[in-house]
Amino acid sequence: MKRATFTTPQEAEAAFYEAFEKADLDAMMAVWADDDEIVCVHPGGVRLAGMAQVRESWRQIFAAGQTLRFRLRHQQSLSGMTLVVHSVCEQISVAGETQERGPVISTNIYMRTENGWRMVVHHASPAPVSPDAEAKRAPKTLH
Amino acid sequence: MKRATFTTPQEAEAAFYEAFEKADLDAMMAVWADDDEIVCVHPGGVRLAGMAQVRESWRQIFAAGQTLRFRLRHQQSLSGMTLVVHSVCEQISVAGETQERGPVISTNIYMRTENGWRMVVHHASPAPVSPDAEAKRAPKTLH
Repeated sequence: MKRATFTTPQEAEAAFYEAFEKADLDAMMAVWADDDEIVCVHPGGVRLAGMAQVRESWRQIFAAGQTLRFRLRHQQSLSGMTLVVHSVCEQISVAGETQERGPVISTNIYMRTENGWRMVVHHASPAPVSPDAEAKRAPKTLH
Repeated sequence: MKRATFTTPQEAEAAFYEAFEKADLDAMMAVWADDDEIVCVHPGGVRLAGMAQVRESWRQIFAAGQTLRFRLRHQQSLSGMTLVVHSVCEQISVAGETQERGPVISTNIYMRTENGWRMVVHHASPAPVSPDAEAKRAPKTLH
């Protein structure tokens, strides 16, 4: 595996999209922290956690053989010495309905402000399968 | 608007889901940082940025009148003094296709490690409309 060192988040992000466009698995995984806590949610996909699941998902995506090009728009950046990221699977019940709704995966980010901890990002997306199955499933979409 | 002070991210998160279940707009907005950089993506929705857009989206969701209950599973937490969050809209082209694919909204989170900056979260979800329209659109799904 390549052992690049990125001196800024911007460098890491550029390397992420370059690896994606080149379908270069080693370069892609060199962007990720070697940590059990990493989280990856592909569009319409389940939550993948840890190096093994994340690596396998990219292997499958790259094996599909499509060549993609990315153009990034509307970039926004948040940084702080005091950010905390929570990743949760929401099982939602609607009053009057007997069945639970399919799970929603949410990335919730909190920042310490002068008024205590406040939410700065809530990114939620529907997951296609029950969370019990999440560890076993690979993403169904290309990206 | 209520001016609660949350002393931990966990308190802020509990208040978020409580406000959601109660459909209490003031309590919901008291959880968010009063900042132009806040980002909210409802499931299947566009990226909303800043207090005005985020508040309006919750107002519409709560106005729908459904009572929801949340059960959180598979919670995972990432914290560090050196996290940076990037929110981007990806316009994706596939080699051999003339039309660009619909935009994908991605929350990319980087952490400073002993090996430089590395990705720790990539949460991507398909957006229903062109990013040029994103500022004008409210989310179509309940949550």
